[in-house]
Amino acid sequence: MKLWDKGFSIDKKIESFTVGKDRIIDLHIAKYDIQASIAHAIMLNSIGIVNDAELSALTNELNRLYEDAEKGELIIEESFEDIHSKIEQELTKKLGETGKKIHTARSRNDQVLVALQLYYKDSLNIINQKVKSLFDTLIVLAETHKSKLLPGYTHLQVAMPSSFGLWFSAYAELLIDDVYLLNAVKNIVDQNPLGSAAGYGSSFPIDRTITTDELQFKTLKYNVVAAQLSRGKSERCMASALGSLSNTLGRFAMDVCLYMSQNFDFISFPDELTTGSSIMPHKKNPDVFELIRGKCNKIQALHTEMLLITNNLPSGYHRDFQLLKENMIDAIESIKDILDIFNFSITQVIVKDVNLNDDKYKYLFTVDSINNLVVDGMSFRDAYKQIGDEVQSGNYKPDLGKEHSHIGSIHNLCLEDIKTKFPS
Amino acid sequence: MKLWDKGFSIDKKIESFTVGKDRIIDLHIAKYDIQASIAHAIMLNSIGIVNDAELSALTNELNRLYEDAEKGELIIEESFEDIHSKIEQELTKKLGETGKKIHTARSRNDQVLVALQLYYKDSLNIINQKVKSLFDTLIVLAETHKSKLLPGYTHLQVAMPSSFGLWFSAYAELLIDDVYLLNAVKNIVDQNPLGSAAGYGSSFPIDRTITTDELQFKTLKYNVVAAQLSRGKSERCMASALGSLSNTLGRFAMDVCLYMSQNFDFISFPDELTTGSSIMPHKKNPDVFELIRGKCNKIQALHTEMLLITNNLPSGYHRDFQLLKENMIDAIESIKDILDIFNFSITQVIVKDVNLNDDKYKYLFTVDSINNLVVDGMSFRDAYKQIGDEVQSGNYKPDLGKEHSHIGSIHNLCLEDIKTKFPS
Amino acid sequence: MKLWDKGFSIDKKIESFTVGKDRIIDLHIAKYDIQASIAHAIMLNSIGIVNDAELSALTNELNRLYEDAEKGELIIEESFEDIHSKIEQELTKKLGETGKKIHTARSRNDQVLVALQLYYKDSLNIINQKVKSLFDTLIVLAETHKSKLLPGYTHLQVAMPSSFGLWFSAYAELLIDDVYLLNAVKNIVDQNPLGSAAGYGSSFPIDRTITTDELQFKTLKYNVVAAQLSRGKSERCMASALGSLSNTLGRFAMDVCLYMSQNFDFISFPDELTTGSSIMPHKKNPDVFELIRGKCNKIQALHTEMLLITNNLPSGYHRDFQLLKENMIDAIESIKDILDIFNFSITQVIVKDVNLNDDKYKYLFTVDSINNLVVDGMSFRDAYKQIGDEVQSGNYKPDLGKEHSHIGSIHNLCLEDIKTKFPS
Amino acid sequence: MKLWDKGFSIDKKIESFTVGKDRIIDLHIAKYDIQASIAHAIMLNSIGIVNDAELSALTNELNRLYEDAEKGELIIEESFEDIHSKIEQELTKKLGETGKKIHTARSRNDQVLVALQLYYKDSLNIINQKVKSLFDTLIVLAETHKSKLLPGYTHLQVAMPSSFGLWFSAYAELLIDDVYLLNAVKNIVDQNPLGSAAGYGSSFPIDRTITTDELQFKTLKYNVVAAQLSRGKSERCMASALGSLSNTLGRFAMDVCLYMSQNFDFISFPDELTTGSSIMPHKKNPDVFELIRGKCNKIQALHTEMLLITNNLPSGYHRDFQLLKENMIDAIESIKDILDIFNFSITQVIVKDVNLNDDKYKYLFTVDSINNLVVDGMSFRDAYKQIGDEVQSGNYKPDLGKEHSHIGSIHNLCLEDIKTKFPS
Repeated sequence: MKLWDKGFSIDKKIESFTVGKDRIIDLHIAKYDIQASIAHAIMLNSIGIVNDAELSALTNELNRLYEDAEKGELIIEESFEDIHSKIEQELTKKLGETGKKIHTARSRNDQVLVALQLYYKDSLNIINQKVKSLFDTLIVLAETHKSKLLPGYTHLQVAMPSSFGLWFSAYAELLIDDVYLLNAVKNIVDQNPLGSAAGYGSSFPIDRTITTDELQFKTLKYNVVAAQLSRGKSERCMASALGSLSNTLGRFAMDVCLYMSQNFDFISFPDELTTGSSIMPHKKNPDVFELIRGKCNKIQALHTEMLLITNNLPSGYHRDFQLLKENMIDAIESIKDILDIFNFSITQVIVKDVNLNDDKYKYLFTVDSINNLVVDGMSFRDAYKQIGDEVQSGNYKPDLGKEHSHIGSIHNLCLEDIKTKFPS
Repeated sequence: MKLWDKGFSIDKKIESFTVGKDRIIDLHIAKYDIQASIAHAIMLNSIGIVNDAELSALTNELNRLYEDAEKGELIIEESFEDIHSKIEQELTKKLGETGKKIHTARSRNDQVLVALQLYYKDSLNIINQKVKSLFDTLIVLAETHKSKLLPGYTHLQVAMPSSFGLWFSAYAELLIDDVYLLNAVKNIVDQNPLGSAAGYGSSFPIDRTITTDELQFKTLKYNVVAAQLSRGKSERCMASALGSLSNTLGRFAMDVCLYMSQNFDFISFPDELTTGSSIMPHKKNPDVFELIRGKCNKIQALHTEMLLITNNLPSGYHRDFQLLKENMIDAIESIKDILDIFNFSITQVIVKDVNLNDDKYKYLFTVDSINNLVVDGMSFRDAYKQIGDEVQSGNYKPDLGKEHSHIGSIHNLCLEDIKTKFPS
Repeated sequence: MKLWDKGFSIDKKIESFTVGKDRIIDLHIAKYDIQASIAHAIMLNSIGIVNDAELSALTNELNRLYEDAEKGELIIEESFEDIHSKIEQELTKKLGETGKKIHTARSRNDQVLVALQLYYKDSLNIINQKVKSLFDTLIVLAETHKSKLLPGYTHLQVAMPSSFGLWFSAYAELLIDDVYLLNAVKNIVDQNPLGSAAGYGSSFPIDRTITTDELQFKTLKYNVVAAQLSRGKSERCMASALGSLSNTLGRFAMDVCLYMSQNFDFISFPDELTTGSSIMPHKKNPDVFELIRGKCNKIQALHTEMLLITNNLPSGYHRDFQLLKENMIDAIESIKDILDIFNFSITQVIVKDVNLNDDKYKYLFTVDSINNLVVDGMSFRDAYKQIGDEVQSGNYKPDLGKEHSHIGSIHNLCLEDIKTKFPS
Repeated sequence: MKLWDKGFSIDKKIESFTVGKDRIIDLHIAKYDIQASIAHAIMLNSIGIVNDAELSALTNELNRLYEDAEKGELIIEESFEDIHSKIEQELTKKLGETGKKIHTARSRNDQVLVALQLYYKDSLNIINQKVKSLFDTLIVLAETHKSKLLPGYTHLQVAMPSSFGLWFSAYAELLIDDVYLLNAVKNIVDQNPLGSAAGYGSSFPIDRTITTDELQFKTLKYNVVAAQLSRGKSERCMASALGSLSNTLGRFAMDVCLYMSQNFDFISFPDELTTGSSIMPHKKNPDVFELIRGKCNKIQALHTEMLLITNNLPSGYHRDFQLLKENMIDAIESIKDILDIFNFSITQVIVKDVNLNDDKYKYLFTVDSINNLVVDGMSFRDAYKQIGDEVQSGNYKPDLGKEHSHIGSIHNLCLEDIKTKFPS
């Protein structure tokens, strides 16, 4: 059954082209479509379109479908083009005329929109929790390894002393910025769009405050045209925020891969977390972190796709919007996995003792040497020149004893302050 | 004078390649570099590196340069590679040893980072104000034209009745979502990075709370490595938020261009706001809105550039970061112009009376007709079938009288609610 | 069985994360992996590593697997991580030691690379044929409808006369540019990479000319490091060329959607090719062309993904490369469908008679009017002024009779010349 | 003077918004606009619109302007909005009515389009020559350093032996792929668009074969609508091809930066080619190669911008197209510089002797050890297991003597074959 069937035979080829992957991808939003249908039924009852008995029948049936969805037992058969027609058909099959009433005063645009928004909101909550877990892990790692020094690089050249404490907590603090974005996007999707119908509202006297309350939306997208224009906007914003988070994780993963290289040899992982080669028996490759990096890059690329699909289109619904959800949902499920795997894996990191006396690190302390001279009264520029001349002539002797004590430096990581900053 | 001059003659060609457009682009951040230098001097005084007389001399000189910058009289001559070396040289020329002291306990990375962050923060405030002005304009336009109907389209096909009130206020409400993002990015850039030096902190006992207070940052980026990693991150987040705003404006501009077409003819603009053709004397082209759309697309493209420059790079400063600021600053200045021009232009829109009795709009009211039947007791699906049959057989008669009264619909725009939602 | 199994138990979660969608996506390259394996076996025989009986056993078994793949009967079970381990296991199960020998002097990197390259090459040939079919269709449509005029627009404003002949053949001629790019990419992928092993070649005396000939590659990627660096490069180039083609098709689809709007009403399609609405019974929406446009936008977005995955990575294989194939293969299969559907659908276009005497089109002929004056001796700028004054004062009278006869204009489409230009 | 001036006073603010950076950017295409104007004048003469004396006056004046442009003495004053109005005004000022005639039978769209295509074509020739120079340099470097071994990495882990010969010539061979694309784009821009006027041709009996010959275009874009649709398409294709070349150069630069790190220490450069730090006197940073990498990333990002500007727009000119040229021209000039600087710098590379006996490289030869066993008759999988056990138990002894002799491997670089492959 296709909702828009007008009695014409639609070419099979065209049908498969238009349906696309909806039957598979829609399973991720089934629960949310059902929730929204229940809220819609309650609202229809409140304005007298559905009576109490009908409401009861509808909610019973919808709750049963919800349980199926939760258990993963809801299937969208070949005869349906998406989750929405599937659910309506189930209701009609079981409840006859009562089932048909559920579609009063709403449209499929409405349904897709509200179901996606509920899914995005729920996913953002889950992602936020996982980010918080990873944040906590990194703070613990920073505390644990705070006394272990690392060479710090600029331009990939040995520059100044750093530490594992700085390294782990740097990425923890960056996650806070990502949470700022994720929370902004939560505000964006936490607005009830239901009631916009096909994008221009309805002549029924629907009560949108009821569905807003039932679905626990913080507010509503008042303007029905704005509701429709949020197709694509929600996805672009989600893609931006997930992309920002992915960038943090991806660049961390790059560091991990580099630091595992024999030429750095700062960290390693248990064999269980590395993979081998089909021809080189000695290999213990950081595939997990390479795949994190790669998958984070895929997520970062998503923004361009979300943008191109809607860009330059006039207002009003276009069928192109159907294509937004596919890779969006993939990305959301992917980032959840990435956060789990990252957290699981980084906990097992083996931090090595890096020998900063090694010849290649000897200039790591030139700035500290300069600063000693400055504290003794020389101007910075002159001290810079003197140490520079020592380096040039081969007479430079490093001073390894200097403490870095200011806020956020090696010996004063301010982990508690960083924890306090994490948005609640 | 190049700060890193080690006495070698650097090939002229290489120099021009490395300096790039910094001399021009840096003028936008001159003021902020000076502000940060003053804050740094005050801090150096507090920890005893600069005495009171030196502080006074430094701040006097810096304030003078600030005035030059405000008046647009600060010039970065060919002999300087950027604003930072220019300012240090000015101080040294005027104040000798005292001038040299300003660079104690900081690095150029520090300077660029803090100056950009101050510029971004200031720009976000300006942009927010301009968005609010445009929002107010659109609400007024919606109120003014709320009784004028428009055809609403889905799939670019005539669908259901809409109105100018809905159209103007839809874009107003969407701007609120953009402000959520802009505010999140303000949180991201409103963290003092000064004191990270080259990205690994300093052995000087600097007091970063003093510069945080002086520069009125809400908090600081504690971890010095995180501060350095925010190069690129700030820019990606700025690009996302400006891109989101640009998308709203660009799509509105697309509607404007389409609605000005003779085939729609819903709006027009005074001749002063249209441009002609070099060969067609009748043309009154919507160049302003086309350029808004195009410039908004350029801004939307910026995110990919900001991303590619830093993507997959290990942590620590890389010279590539210098290239981030160029198009970022261009985009920021561009969006300020776009907002001004949009606001200026849209105020002059001439809203036409659209004849909904025209034959091509006759099916605009089929959903209202269905709903009438439903209110009379028919199920939606059956009413859909009946009206569908009337359309198919050519017997359909539109019902133009129906009111849409629910929240956010044609006759209930909820403009006050939308105004309340605008984040303060 | 995992090829790199070193006897450790790998966490289930990690395994699923690393395997990803390879089991499904690899079915598209199974045939090509088998072809390459046969070529590799022949080469191993030629250098004495595999004897004649072993070669015969290997090729028999591989040919059997090829037939399974052709019939769609090859399945990659849960116990295999990709097509390559599956095939090697099949050979080992059936042929014991002989089966194991197939992996001599090659690596999995080798296998993936050569199989993808063969798949890309084959797909480019198929795509080229489909482009040619669509080109032919458009030329026929242009010829058929060459006498039907259309308004031509600039800035979406009525500008000058155009025609259906011009419209259809414009897109045909643009396809030629896309074929230039597709052919360049064919050159890029038509270079045998087999023999690069893990990216640094092999100490076996392999004969790469034999596999080059067997697999009918035009030349080989000589340098083994270059072969490995082509991971990602092939995909970026494929994405560029498919993106260019998609842009042509997507913009054509945009025209189709616009021209089907009641406000233009230049074309329509049979009911079988339009879809309805769940709430508006009168709708005949151009979903097919909207989905073509949307899918073309997805393909255009792919380039950014391909780029981000490999960008800024040092040379040598990285596991991230595994992620390149997933959306690449999806895009290739998608563009094949799009070309079929476009060709199938556009053939059924119903071209309407556009009434150019309609008031909204009256200025369509101002340039022709100017040109008449110029031919009579006035300078263009003066004639422009005179007609402009007539338009301004409302006295302009269109001249509909003018012929446009120069090369490539309305009455001289040069279809034969365009056909000749199509690259063979 | 604005060509489309209709006597209204256009708000200054709007004017500056619409003119943008054309006055600066257009200087790059001035020469080409003049060439095209000369060709157009010759054609107008051939069809009797311009007489011989007028033609002579026009070409004299245009040649004089061409010389100014060549000498960099052509200036576009504030009173002109672009190069096209400037040139027309010059002609009119000097030649009166004759000057006005140059704009007969063409439009500004025409002019911009043909001038840009000529500039692109010329630039592609220049870029191709520079690529060839760099290719030659790399081949020489490969030959010079072919006996120097390097560790080869996969997953950034020490994998198998490589060499400087392989490294340099890998990037040389990759450049060939980039030339395939550059040549395809040359085909795309080498088609005369002149005569499309505003995009729908002209009622004048213009002879487009004359301008095609005069401007030495290989063929013409016959269809006038296709000519207009090539706005944006040319730019997307240019951006793709330049992006591909940039990717090759950028990834090479990444290798350079990594290999210069003290942790790899494979290469260095003379002090003249490195830059220092404002606080670390020992630094010799690879800024040149970092800026190459960064600038290459900017060029790679351009494709998204070119795409977004035109994406989803209906056919016909839109003013947005004006914005295409700005960053496109920047990118073209930038890649020319990058190629020069890269060639200049890489020639001065100092290749170090890498000690492969260092403990961290000891497993570099495990595959060679396996292969020895295989050549002695063991199956690859069993030999892999034996060497794997030796590595695991710490008993592995490397075999450094193995030659890699097959096509494209360390000891058989096939430089002559690669040179032969370079497209003429």
